[in-house]
Amino acid sequence: MGENLSATAKRAGEAVDGERLWQNLMHLAEFGARPDGGVERHALSGADIAARTWLIGEAERRGFSASVDDIANLWIRRKGADEGAEPVIVGSHIDSQPAGGKFDGALGVLAGLEVLTALDVAGIATRRPIDVVAWTNEEGGRFDRSCTGSSVWSGAMALEDFLGDIGADGVRLGDALRLTLDATPDLPRRPRRFPARAYVELHIEQGPVLEAENLDVAAVTGIQGVRWLNVEVAGTAGHAGTTPMTGRRDALQGAHRAIAALNGLMADPQDRVRFTVGRFNAFPNSPNTIPERAVFTIDFRHPDKSLLDHHSERLRPLIEAAAAPCAASLTPTLFMDPIVFPEDLVAKIEEAAQALGHPARRLASGAFHDALYAARVCPAAMIFVPCRAGLSHHPEEWTEPRHARAGARVLAATAAMLAGV
Amino acid sequence: MGENLSATAKRAGEAVDGERLWQNLMHLAEFGARPDGGVERHALSGADIAARTWLIGEAERRGFSASVDDIANLWIRRKGADEGAEPVIVGSHIDSQPAGGKFDGALGVLAGLEVLTALDVAGIATRRPIDVVAWTNEEGGRFDRSCTGSSVWSGAMALEDFLGDIGADGVRLGDALRLTLDATPDLPRRPRRFPARAYVELHIEQGPVLEAENLDVAAVTGIQGVRWLNVEVAGTAGHAGTTPMTGRRDALQGAHRAIAALNGLMADPQDRVRFTVGRFNAFPNSPNTIPERAVFTIDFRHPDKSLLDHHSERLRPLIEAAAAPCAASLTPTLFMDPIVFPEDLVAKIEEAAQALGHPARRLASGAFHDALYAARVCPAAMIFVPCRAGLSHHPEEWTEPRHARAGARVLAATAAMLAGV
Repeated sequence: MGENLSATAKRAGEAVDGERLWQNLMHLAEFGARPDGGVERHALSGADIAARTWLIGEAERRGFSASVDDIANLWIRRKGADEGAEPVIVGSHIDSQPAGGKFDGALGVLAGLEVLTALDVAGIATRRPIDVVAWTNEEGGRFDRSCTGSSVWSGAMALEDFLGDIGADGVRLGDALRLTLDATPDLPRRPRRFPARAYVELHIEQGPVLEAENLDVAAVTGIQGVRWLNVEVAGTAGHAGTTPMTGRRDALQGAHRAIAALNGLMADPQDRVRFTVGRFNAFPNSPNTIPERAVFTIDFRHPDKSLLDHHSERLRPLIEAAAAPCAASLTPTLFMDPIVFPEDLVAKIEEAAQALGHPARRLASGAFHDALYAARVCPAAMIFVPCRAGLSHHPEEWTEPRHARAGARVLAATAAMLAGV
Repeated sequence: MGENLSATAKRAGEAVDGERLWQNLMHLAEFGARPDGGVERHALSGADIAARTWLIGEAERRGFSASVDDIANLWIRRKGADEGAEPVIVGSHIDSQPAGGKFDGALGVLAGLEVLTALDVAGIATRRPIDVVAWTNEEGGRFDRSCTGSSVWSGAMALEDFLGDIGADGVRLGDALRLTLDATPDLPRRPRRFPARAYVELHIEQGPVLEAENLDVAAVTGIQGVRWLNVEVAGTAGHAGTTPMTGRRDALQGAHRAIAALNGLMADPQDRVRFTVGRFNAFPNSPNTIPERAVFTIDFRHPDKSLLDHHSERLRPLIEAAAAPCAASLTPTLFMDPIVFPEDLVAKIEEAAQALGHPARRLASGAFHDALYAARVCPAAMIFVPCRAGLSHHPEEWTEPRHARAGARVLAATAAMLAGV
């Protein structure tokens, strides 16, 4: 295992039970299960609350202690020999996209729980406590702004700024949050932004690289930056059969021209820019009425902050010009700069993977993750495992049991190293 | 009044009470009134049923008899001296767009009722009966396929074909129809497709011509043809941040390319083609998921059948090529060829207008109307009055009281001529 990974850490990895982990993954997927095999588990929803309750029960049954902070991030602790030492944090999230899968987020949380159990089974007492966290509303599937739990915990955003957010179902985030916290009234309350030794998040790759290269794991080097904006195009309604084409202010056509202009701006021969219009709504949305309003979302990402800034500055004039004679307005909803994970932490993951027989490659993350915010508080890094066809945010999202197991093994060894023995 | 319009017909027109007509227009607009001053009165809805009940009450209070057919077209009859003679039909519809106005359809029905009253006031006994009709679901705002009542009445479509249609609110047309008919259990039942002398429909222009030329009325020469289609584009969902742009099957972008290709096909330097994408929905409609499905509507119209056929034939290959690598499918939902109204009927309207001091111009209709189907049973024609800025299908749709009055006057004189005295 080399100088940097003790035999103890390797033993922690080897104590991971892939079958137990898999059974937990399948069980968690029943909360918010869709008929098509996918998962719809919106943050702070009934399905989320039920999943949390089950998770707390599992943790307590295994002798770990659960707690919660005031943005409903759920914490599960395995004690350290030195309870005053800064803990190692592992975890991810358990909310899903509206038509999501069984692994995005869930793997990181349940592998975390498996790590705690593996350490018990292996009879390893770590110096530092290890906390498993399930962050609130990472996906932004119900409440538009994502990574709510980690951004509030890290202090990047104020809790109060989120309370008024209205979910896709019309519910205020503050009300859903209260409902969730009230469902577990006996849980101790954790503070936010407590000091920590490190944060390590295991996640499916959500891309095709590991599968193509037949590798079990990747040590993630960083996360590309992302910008989200809402665009609203305002035109004039009218009768589809009588209004001459000349002089129309058709909001859908205005939005259409804006998207064409955006496609031009975002075009990248290197295929490193990611640009998606995921949501589009027209009003009144009637076949024979010229739309008077169209709204759509922009999601664009790149590893370089300079390109993100360059493109961001051009968005408003570009869209306004393209949408004319309709009026256009832009509202930024998410702004994350790229992040590079600390070299020593990435190297530790590589060493753990190597020692356990899962040679890793380095890979940058295309998706953002809660690690991006955790990195504001402590050194952070991530481990990726393959997912079939690179597919995620989809009911058919899939990772093989041996890959879930490999990821949990590397996570266990890394956590043990960081926690000290 | 010339040889073709008797002094009696002119008297009928002069007996029209513009103020009474206006009060009725404002009263009808209260059924389904929107806070913004518009009207949302979906066919066969609670608001529609309430409006029908009021209309029946008004008719019976004035001594006319109401009846209904099995597609819930509402008929109000003023008896003729020869009750066996084929009646003259006047009317329009009282359903509205989701964000519609006070005049589209409503004017033709209430002016019809005013014509019957004017004949009473003027003490004119016509030879033929005069029927006022309120056709069911002209707009297609609730149930996608429009002109349901007139197309079934005329025999162009079978009643049974519509019963399974699902409304925007999830209700079956057959269920809404039963509810509507059950609300007026005492009304006699009329047959469908009974022979008639003529059908004359008064309507707002829904275009800018009359207002621009400062004219009170137009004699409508015909109705341009229209084609409606639903387009569905199927792609593959995926994560917005990780899926490379190359190789994506983004259904929204596929629909976007299809609309661009359609804009090219429909481009017309003469500005006679009318092309509208009024409805657009993406799925799952989440900001950071590549859309796996996008559906949109095509509404396109032209006065020449040959151009409609030419463009129609090109739609499928054009859309399939543009949407690739996404799959695209097309479903026609409405198919109306252009129609030319009989010259003698158009001339009668011109004469009536001239005699009453409302010089008319001839105008083709950009919108389709129930007259298109009524024309399959008997000679049909239409009268237009101006509407402000050509605006319709909009809460701010407006026609001046003097224009509503002028239209009703010309309708009364035309109906009297056709009914004989």
